[in-house]
Amino acid sequence: MQKSKQHRKNALKALGEAVRNRRLELSLSQEGLGQTADLHRTYITDIEGGLRNLSFLTLLRLAKGLNCLPSELIAEAENLSGFHKI
Amino acid sequence: MQKSKQHRKNALKALGEAVRNRRLELSLSQEGLGQTADLHRTYITDIEGGLRNLSFLTLLRLAKGLNCLPSELIAEAENLSGFHKI
Repeated sequence: MQKSKQHRKNALKALGEAVRNRRLELSLSQEGLGQTADLHRTYITDIEGGLRNLSFLTLLRLAKGLNCLPSELIAEAENLSGFHKI
Repeated sequence: MQKSKQHRKNALKALGEAVRNRRLELSLSQEGLGQTADLHRTYITDIEGGLRNLSFLTLLRLAKGLNCLPSELIAEAENLSGFHKI
């Protein structure tokens, strides 16, 4: 796998992990987050698994559903896996 | 226009403004940023105008081209227009 492709994959995985961590901190189920963010539960599953390259506006809906700022979610993902390496 | 639609529009505009501000700080042209971020110049124009709901991975490429962390770019956009209101 190309290095840049691996980095992109890692970035999506890190974002998914950040979403999952925050969701669990709030004791929310994927279904519960889906309802507050107005996204389907299976879409949340895919995001948490790093399988979706979500849009900026979806990121904002997720952050709202997780009761945090989008930048906080991204910063947490950066901590998990350095995005600047991409 | 619906309130949520206006909020989404404002969020995209704020992100575009944050990108533009950062680009000008670096004395980069849209074409120059396009080259470092591997995006077409017209796509940069659209992003700066708030006309594109860019993907997460594109956001990462932009941040790399602007020599900053994605979270810094988002935080700047939040300062310009509160995303959490969306």
